[in-house]
Amino acid sequence: MSAVLVTGIEPFESDPTNPSWDIAQALDGMQVDGAVIVARQLPCVFGLANEKLVEAIEDTSPTLVFALGLATGRTEISVERVAINVIDARIPDNAGNQPVDTPVVAGGPAAYFSTLPIKAIVQTLREAGVPTGVSQSAGTYNCNHLFYGLMHHIATRARHVRGGFIHVPTTPELAALHAGRPSLSIDTQIKGILLAVRTALATQADLKMSGGAVH
Amino acid sequence: MSAVLVTGIEPFESDPTNPSWDIAQALDGMQVDGAVIVARQLPCVFGLANEKLVEAIEDTSPTLVFALGLATGRTEISVERVAINVIDARIPDNAGNQPVDTPVVAGGPAAYFSTLPIKAIVQTLREAGVPTGVSQSAGTYNCNHLFYGLMHHIATRARHVRGGFIHVPTTPELAALHAGRPSLSIDTQIKGILLAVRTALATQADLKMSGGAVH
Amino acid sequence: MSAVLVTGIEPFESDPTNPSWDIAQALDGMQVDGAVIVARQLPCVFGLANEKLVEAIEDTSPTLVFALGLATGRTEISVERVAINVIDARIPDNAGNQPVDTPVVAGGPAAYFSTLPIKAIVQTLREAGVPTGVSQSAGTYNCNHLFYGLMHHIATRARHVRGGFIHVPTTPELAALHAGRPSLSIDTQIKGILLAVRTALATQADLKMSGGAVH
Amino acid sequence: MSAVLVTGIEPFESDPTNPSWDIAQALDGMQVDGAVIVARQLPCVFGLANEKLVEAIEDTSPTLVFALGLATGRTEISVERVAINVIDARIPDNAGNQPVDTPVVAGGPAAYFSTLPIKAIVQTLREAGVPTGVSQSAGTYNCNHLFYGLMHHIATRARHVRGGFIHVPTTPELAALHAGRPSLSIDTQIKGILLAVRTALATQADLKMSGGAVH
Repeated sequence: MSAVLVTGIEPFESDPTNPSWDIAQALDGMQVDGAVIVARQLPCVFGLANEKLVEAIEDTSPTLVFALGLATGRTEISVERVAINVIDARIPDNAGNQPVDTPVVAGGPAAYFSTLPIKAIVQTLREAGVPTGVSQSAGTYNCNHLFYGLMHHIATRARHVRGGFIHVPTTPELAALHAGRPSLSIDTQIKGILLAVRTALATQADLKMSGGAVH
Repeated sequence: MSAVLVTGIEPFESDPTNPSWDIAQALDGMQVDGAVIVARQLPCVFGLANEKLVEAIEDTSPTLVFALGLATGRTEISVERVAINVIDARIPDNAGNQPVDTPVVAGGPAAYFSTLPIKAIVQTLREAGVPTGVSQSAGTYNCNHLFYGLMHHIATRARHVRGGFIHVPTTPELAALHAGRPSLSIDTQIKGILLAVRTALATQADLKMSGGAVH
Repeated sequence: MSAVLVTGIEPFESDPTNPSWDIAQALDGMQVDGAVIVARQLPCVFGLANEKLVEAIEDTSPTLVFALGLATGRTEISVERVAINVIDARIPDNAGNQPVDTPVVAGGPAAYFSTLPIKAIVQTLREAGVPTGVSQSAGTYNCNHLFYGLMHHIATRARHVRGGFIHVPTTPELAALHAGRPSLSIDTQIKGILLAVRTALATQADLKMSGGAVH
Repeated sequence: MSAVLVTGIEPFESDPTNPSWDIAQALDGMQVDGAVIVARQLPCVFGLANEKLVEAIEDTSPTLVFALGLATGRTEISVERVAINVIDARIPDNAGNQPVDTPVVAGGPAAYFSTLPIKAIVQTLREAGVPTGVSQSAGTYNCNHLFYGLMHHIATRARHVRGGFIHVPTTPELAALHAGRPSLSIDTQIKGILLAVRTALATQADLKMSGGAVH
C-alpha cells in the first residue's frame, strides 16, 4: 500500500493551536483508495522544518506529499501554485530567527510549481461545498520555505513523488478570540483535505480550468 | 411556558437557501431554560415581511423575539445595535419592488436600539468559540426594514417584549459556489443563535463592554 | 452674505495631522455662490467637542454646517446618513476618556438623519471624478458624537440651519507611514468638500437615487 | 547619456484610460541624474506585448527598464518581487485570447526575480509620502506575462540591463465611476515612479529590509 504524507505545522505567533496539524492528525492512519495517510508535525523554524520534512519523506516513502500550513485571514482553502526561492520574514520564527531576503536553497532555481492537480482539487472541493481557490503566492515566510524545500527535494532526489502545499484558514474557535476574522470549521477543513488527497490519487493530468488572478 | 420567536427570511438574490431560515427551523420547538422556541419564515418583501412578523408575534405571544437575516460577506455573527427608519434598496426585493429613501414607518422615530443584551451575547458566544461582534448598521434593505418594524411594533404595541436583529454569515456550501467569500458552518451558527437566546433569557441588564467602531 | 461653517477635528491616536482640519483650513474665508466659508477646529474630546461646535454655530450664524472627520481605512469621501445617540469608544479620546454605551444626549431621540442633500452630493462629486459614497454608519466614537450633537442642536435650537457629517479618507502622506492603507490626496479632498458645499447651497430637495447597503 | 525605458499598457477591460501609460507619458523625455527616460506603450495582448517590449529595448538600448501596469483594487504602488512562468487568464486580453495554464516561455525557468532594488524603492517612496509596498505576486495575467518576458529577455540576451515591474493603483477619476475602490492621484503616482527610477539609478545593492508576507 502506497503512503500519502500529510504534514502540519506546530502553533506559532500567539495562536494556541494550528489547524494544519489538527487536520493532519485527524487523517493520520486513514486508508483511502489503496493508500494510507501518514501525518507528521513540522516545527515553525527555518531550516529545521525542511530537515524534518526530508526525514519524514525518507521515513515514509510516500508517492504523494501534502504540506499544510495556516493562513489566518484567508476565507477558503488555498491550493498554492508556486514556491519561490526567498525567505523574507516579517516576524521571527519559533526559534527567534528572522531572515530577510535570503534564499531557501542557495543556488536553487527561482521557483517550483506544485505538482498536485491544483485545478482538479479546487473543482472537486467546491462541488462538495468546501470553499476553495488557487493561490498565486504562499508568502515569503515558513510556509513558502517549506513548500520550496519540498519541491526542491522532489526535483533533486525524489522525482517520482508528487507534492504541493495547501494553506488553510483559521478555525471559528481561534477567530472568536479576535474580531472580524474569517474562519472555516475544522470538520469542513478535514473533509476538504481528505477530498484533495483523493483527487490527487485519482488525477494524473490536471484540468485546464481558469484559476488565475488579474494582478 | 414562555415563547421565544425566532424568524428567518426566505432565499433572495441568487442564493438557493437562506441560512437565517435554516437556523430558525433547526431551533423550532426546542425547550430551553423554561421557554419554547417558535420559528417562522418571513418573505423578502418590503411591507409584507413586517405584516407577517406582526402576525407571528400576535400568534405566538413571545417574551423575546430574535429576527435573523443573511449578510453575505460578513465573517461572523453580527448582533445589530440599531434599526433606522429608512429603506434604500440597492436591489429589488422578491416582489420586484425597490424603494429608495422612503421611511419604514411614515412618521416613526429616526431609529430604535435593540433591546437584546448585545454585549452579553457577543461575550458569551466568543467564549464558546463562535466568532461574533456588534454591528453598528443593519444596512438599508429588507433586514433593517424588518428590524425597524419589529422594534416599532414592540415600542407601540408590545412594550413587555424584548427583541432585536442578528445578521448571520453565509455557509461554506453557499460560499463554495463563488470565490473568496467568508462563511460559517450552519452547525456553528445554530449553536451561536441558541446561545444568544439563552443569554438573552438569563440577562436583564446588558454588560458595559466596548463593542464600538471608531468610524 | 450667509455663512457656511466647516469644522475639522484635531489630530488623534498616533496621526500627526488630521486631514479633516486641513480641508477646513484650506476652505476658510473662501466666498462661494454668495456665501462665505468659515472654518473651526474641534477637539477630539467627548462633550467638549460638542460645546465648541455649539459655540462656533452661535458665533458664526451659519445657514449650513459641514462637520468633517477622518476615517482611516475608508477609500472614498463618505457622506454620512444618520447619527445615533450612543457613545461606545474603542479607544480613549484626547482627554483620556473612553465612555461605553452612554448616550450623546441623555433623553435625546435614538437618531437624527443628515439634512444635507446626501445623494446629490454623491452624484456631483462622482461626476467630478472624486470617489464618494453614502455611509450608513458614522461609528460610535467622536465623529458620530459630533454629528449627533450637531443635529440635536439644529433640531432643538436652530431649525433653519441644515447640516451633516462627512468622513474623509486619510492622505497618501499619512498612509505611507503604514502598509496597505487606502488614501486620497488632500487636493482631491478639498475639491470634493468644496463641491459638496456648493451642491448643498444649490439643492433644496435631495435626489431620489439609490445609495443603500444590503446589510 | 544612458536611457531608462518606462513602459505603460493600453486601456483594458472597461476602463477608458490606463494610469500606467499616463505615468510613462508624463515622464517621457525627462532627463534625470544623467539618464533620459523613454516611454513606450504596450498592448494588452499576450505574446504581442512581449514582442513590442523586446523591440522597445532593442530600439532604446536602456540600462534600466521599468515596466508598469494597472492593478485596480490595490491601495498603493506595488513593487513586484517575482515573475512566474505561467499564464492563467481570468478574462480575455484585448485580442480576445484567454490562455489557461500555458507557460509564458516554453522551457523557460519557473520564475525570475526583479533586479530592481525593490526594498530601497519602497523605503524611498514611503519617506517621500507615497504609499508603496513590495508585492509577492504580479498575478497570472498580462502584467506577469510582461514581467516574465522582460526578465527572460534580460537573462538570455541583455544581461547588463536591470529591470522589473511595478503595479500602480487606479486613479480617483476612474475610481469615481464605481463604488468603494481605492485610488492614488496621478500626480502622486508620477512622483512615485520618478523617485523609483532615481532610486534604481543610485542603488546597486538593495537594502536588507523586511518586506515579506507571512502567507
